[in-house]
Amino acid sequence: MNSSFLDFRSDTVTKPTAGMLDAMMSAKVGDDVFGEDETVQKLENKLAATFNMEAGLFCPSGTMTNQIGIKCFTQPMDEVICDQTAHVYRYEIGGIAYHSAASVRLLYGERGILTPELIEPEINEDNIHYPNSSLVVLENTVNKGGGSCYTLAQIAPIHHLCNIKGLKLHLDGARIFNALVATGDDAHGYGKYFDGISVCLSKGLGAPVGSVLLGSKETIKKARKIRKAFGGGMRQAGFLAAAGNYALDHHVERLKDDHKHAKALADALISTNYVLSVMPVETNIVVFEVAKGTAEQVVNRLKEKGLHCNTTSASTVRLVTHLDLSPAMIDQAVEIILHL
Amino acid sequence: MNSSFLDFRSDTVTKPTAGMLDAMMSAKVGDDVFGEDETVQKLENKLAATFNMEAGLFCPSGTMTNQIGIKCFTQPMDEVICDQTAHVYRYEIGGIAYHSAASVRLLYGERGILTPELIEPEINEDNIHYPNSSLVVLENTVNKGGGSCYTLAQIAPIHHLCNIKGLKLHLDGARIFNALVATGDDAHGYGKYFDGISVCLSKGLGAPVGSVLLGSKETIKKARKIRKAFGGGMRQAGFLAAAGNYALDHHVERLKDDHKHAKALADALISTNYVLSVMPVETNIVVFEVAKGTAEQVVNRLKEKGLHCNTTSASTVRLVTHLDLSPAMIDQAVEIILHL
Amino acid sequence: MNSSFLDFRSDTVTKPTAGMLDAMMSAKVGDDVFGEDETVQKLENKLAATFNMEAGLFCPSGTMTNQIGIKCFTQPMDEVICDQTAHVYRYEIGGIAYHSAASVRLLYGERGILTPELIEPEINEDNIHYPNSSLVVLENTVNKGGGSCYTLAQIAPIHHLCNIKGLKLHLDGARIFNALVATGDDAHGYGKYFDGISVCLSKGLGAPVGSVLLGSKETIKKARKIRKAFGGGMRQAGFLAAAGNYALDHHVERLKDDHKHAKALADALISTNYVLSVMPVETNIVVFEVAKGTAEQVVNRLKEKGLHCNTTSASTVRLVTHLDLSPAMIDQAVEIILHL
Amino acid sequence: MNSSFLDFRSDTVTKPTAGMLDAMMSAKVGDDVFGEDETVQKLENKLAATFNMEAGLFCPSGTMTNQIGIKCFTQPMDEVICDQTAHVYRYEIGGIAYHSAASVRLLYGERGILTPELIEPEINEDNIHYPNSSLVVLENTVNKGGGSCYTLAQIAPIHHLCNIKGLKLHLDGARIFNALVATGDDAHGYGKYFDGISVCLSKGLGAPVGSVLLGSKETIKKARKIRKAFGGGMRQAGFLAAAGNYALDHHVERLKDDHKHAKALADALISTNYVLSVMPVETNIVVFEVAKGTAEQVVNRLKEKGLHCNTTSASTVRLVTHLDLSPAMIDQAVEIILHL
Repeated sequence: MNSSFLDFRSDTVTKPTAGMLDAMMSAKVGDDVFGEDETVQKLENKLAATFNMEAGLFCPSGTMTNQIGIKCFTQPMDEVICDQTAHVYRYEIGGIAYHSAASVRLLYGERGILTPELIEPEINEDNIHYPNSSLVVLENTVNKGGGSCYTLAQIAPIHHLCNIKGLKLHLDGARIFNALVATGDDAHGYGKYFDGISVCLSKGLGAPVGSVLLGSKETIKKARKIRKAFGGGMRQAGFLAAAGNYALDHHVERLKDDHKHAKALADALISTNYVLSVMPVETNIVVFEVAKGTAEQVVNRLKEKGLHCNTTSASTVRLVTHLDLSPAMIDQAVEIILHL
Repeated sequence: MNSSFLDFRSDTVTKPTAGMLDAMMSAKVGDDVFGEDETVQKLENKLAATFNMEAGLFCPSGTMTNQIGIKCFTQPMDEVICDQTAHVYRYEIGGIAYHSAASVRLLYGERGILTPELIEPEINEDNIHYPNSSLVVLENTVNKGGGSCYTLAQIAPIHHLCNIKGLKLHLDGARIFNALVATGDDAHGYGKYFDGISVCLSKGLGAPVGSVLLGSKETIKKARKIRKAFGGGMRQAGFLAAAGNYALDHHVERLKDDHKHAKALADALISTNYVLSVMPVETNIVVFEVAKGTAEQVVNRLKEKGLHCNTTSASTVRLVTHLDLSPAMIDQAVEIILHL
Repeated sequence: MNSSFLDFRSDTVTKPTAGMLDAMMSAKVGDDVFGEDETVQKLENKLAATFNMEAGLFCPSGTMTNQIGIKCFTQPMDEVICDQTAHVYRYEIGGIAYHSAASVRLLYGERGILTPELIEPEINEDNIHYPNSSLVVLENTVNKGGGSCYTLAQIAPIHHLCNIKGLKLHLDGARIFNALVATGDDAHGYGKYFDGISVCLSKGLGAPVGSVLLGSKETIKKARKIRKAFGGGMRQAGFLAAAGNYALDHHVERLKDDHKHAKALADALISTNYVLSVMPVETNIVVFEVAKGTAEQVVNRLKEKGLHCNTTSASTVRLVTHLDLSPAMIDQAVEIILHL
Repeated sequence: MNSSFLDFRSDTVTKPTAGMLDAMMSAKVGDDVFGEDETVQKLENKLAATFNMEAGLFCPSGTMTNQIGIKCFTQPMDEVICDQTAHVYRYEIGGIAYHSAASVRLLYGERGILTPELIEPEINEDNIHYPNSSLVVLENTVNKGGGSCYTLAQIAPIHHLCNIKGLKLHLDGARIFNALVATGDDAHGYGKYFDGISVCLSKGLGAPVGSVLLGSKETIKKARKIRKAFGGGMRQAGFLAAAGNYALDHHVERLKDDHKHAKALADALISTNYVLSVMPVETNIVVFEVAKGTAEQVVNRLKEKGLHCNTTSASTVRLVTHLDLSPAMIDQAVEIILHL
């Protein structure tokens, strides 16, 4: 944590704890391109088992695990169905078009949450003019939905529709553990619904670098080659994977603290006169609309007081809680918010 | 015109008139890949002059002229802004992603008509996460807007915005002559607003095959190479171009008849009890919503009576007028509509 | 034929005969994008039957039929094996990379003729670093090989190798009828060896525009959609297809005259002092090496005398015979060659 | 170093020394996607200064730095000129086609070393059929050339040619420090010749993960966005960069030991009866041809004795020296080689 300010910009900014650093330092490593890094393999296997998938692949970022997943499940001239706010569409530099030569069909879910009713009419019929609808991508939690969650019960009928229509289903699980903690769902239940799951280790879990793509053995074999093509094959990657293993053992349960912290911030915000509304807080993201002036002005005033956060539009601001923000820091933040 | 039915499915179904066929048969041709077909060159130059552009390129289809234009004006990882109903996005098999590796930003114009106010907020700022917004595509008339038109006065401020923001502006002019006839605008006025214009000859103009891409000399030089890569370089293409030249001389003025015919059909339709509403008719396209049952049922009933048209959604039907539909045929169609 | 000079630059420059023009203008046409052009269908079916393939697809050029074929038989990150002189690699603007995102493995065949012995060691093993070898492309005749031919007997073992190794086999048959006439092979024999065949109508056969891709029903269904994406879907394309049908009926047998003419030119050339050597003439292409000075100088001197041809390198020149070059014109050409 | 065998398979297998590990674990890190990791920045700046380039970009692999470089310097439908053994062509899964949609022109350099004389005739003229030649890629040292080196004096005229012809010049410097140590050239001299340089830290330098792309500020700005698209943007990447910084301070000079070791192995090999020939050893790679039997058999026999290495063809074997192979281990290896 940067000592000079309260950093609510993102949960990507965390730095390893002493315990995590120790785990990294003592990792047993090898050349992972040769399949010889046991720490990487442990992480891949552990996450696959957690989500009831066959295999895993460690990558340097969530953008890579998502884009490799999309590449695995599409052909050029296919179409990917996702929410119009989806990270894979909005924040990955048009990667669906660039890496997979696939088009997008963009839906308007409630806070980014899709339903079979929204998806079904947007699946293209077999027609010479249309791209082939081949993949649905969900995001859980939805970043631009202010940390909104799918429950497994909501995912089941989407999977059912995809299954009937012959589409694959991929999960952008950048913050999947936040969703699991918030909903109480069992990670094991995900395996039967998704063809691919991208799990990020460097957000709420607090690892410095890395995401893991989960899928069938066949998918991961294909993904491993695509990772090499993307330049994501790393040599002694076990130093990074060790942090992931540590995070899975020590940083999952505590996500509920981040959620509690987010609610505390939201309660403070809604009581002020410069905040018009706050999105319901489901996980570790707080999004509020400013009452007057611009979001940028509010962000700047908070920054002057030592609280850093970002705008998400001309009138909205986002705060993200994470493990480098202690209860004491949250108290400080609440004070700043209340007396801005 | 197929003698056995009234064909309102599309204005692409027309067959050459005797005069056009004669023009084709007597065309002077050469190897156009070697730049030696004078009939092709005449067509390219004539259309360039008409629209006040520097140069033209004859291609086998409007899909090709559009996709080459988009390729000329984008780089991989760029983003194209267009209406969500745009032909270039919906009906060209995801070509923006496939040929240009570019993403799309989809707007919701009124009947597909965009405005600077809609476009401006969707231009991405310079940010490492976002594709680079580099091109706006307009369609005039808008097929899925039921033949709605832009006037030059509406296009001017869009061009102004693009100019300020450093974006290119391309026109899908599949039915640009319908728009010109309907608005009374001068084609010459288009040249200063667009970087690329795709003009189709095989729709309302009645030529059997072909579209022309218009642009600067530099753009068309680039486009000529891309056309070769697409496999659109044809040898003695003058036979097809001759039909285009003939159409420009003989089939432009008469488009007003198609528009009048479309209005007559709309008047008939709105007076029936199986039609809920009809989109205002601006050009040669009539789109109506069925009052009860499905669009498919109405299309089938019309078909049984000898009038062929297509659904455009579960509840809407489209009829297109064209030069193979004589006044007498329109009268017949009106009778069928009234007594269905 | 351009009246002012003897045009040996390519067999693409031919213009329709009176009979062909008549066939074109009396063609029954329809909207081929809607599958309603019976003349196009007749051509596709006729060629499919000739080569013992299930189905055909009419396209505006041989570049398009080749590139669509390659796209049908590869995935991104695959590798295509072909001769380093192959038209699909050299003269199609890097289309294998652009359209199919596939790499190339380039062989050095004798006059472009590949063998199983050349191909086998270049098939990549399954390794995370290598593209997946998925397609072999042959060209018959080989343009840059000076019109060299494969016999069916040479093709059979290549097919056998591909079959064992799981690779597809595509034929660039730009001049396949020249090969058939020269070798005496039966076109029907090709069907069992190739997954895709591209047959050009606008070279030796003398049609103005078009090529046909042949394959299984499934391949051609896929190809039809890719053709639409490439912008190769033409409306009343029957005018062009009619010329192809006419050519198949009237211009195949006479290719032997072009071959005889080519031999006459070669005999003349080898007897002169400005020609160092002439490649053995197998079909309608003559390639010779100049004895002194540059190929360009010889081409210019021939041009001054009214004989137009092209260089193929700094020291080599190519002449191509075709149906617009009558026996009398060949005699003229021989005189020019002998007395340059 | 794997304790159970002598690992000559590659210089990628090294594991951090105690000093390097210490440097890693005490690194000051930040979110590098936000531009806040000072250790990463130090590495980028240090290498840029060393090679007299404006800026640098840390990436997870040499494949990524190469492919991003190629993407920066090409457009789709361009052509890249390189040796037919080049790593960027052979071992990066056809990435030139996949990421850049560019074709390749493959040369046959002596041990992979290109010259202006080889390159110049392969630059395409401006012609509608040809891809645009836009980039030359050199590799120094040449992996498949058995570690052969370019001197700056050899590079200068290649740069001169590129400059005149308007091509960019990229260096795959996977083992550039081996080349610098072997030739005695000054790294600073490279800056004026290359548009992009890829420097690998995880080969001879002994860092666990990472490569740096060097270029102009404009190139690196572009590259940074492409890196994000590739999924190469890492958060607290400073842990890895710290190893790179350490390696640059401590592991460059000692590469001469690896070269001496390689020569010792070569001397031993050439004295045996199972080795037919050994490529001249210039750096840390030894390639020999087996006298009888297959390369695989020799590799297996060496492996049984505890010396691991790889075949590079059916008849050739490669050994690579690196910092995890001490003088004592080299002595052991020589004994194994002599008494196989």
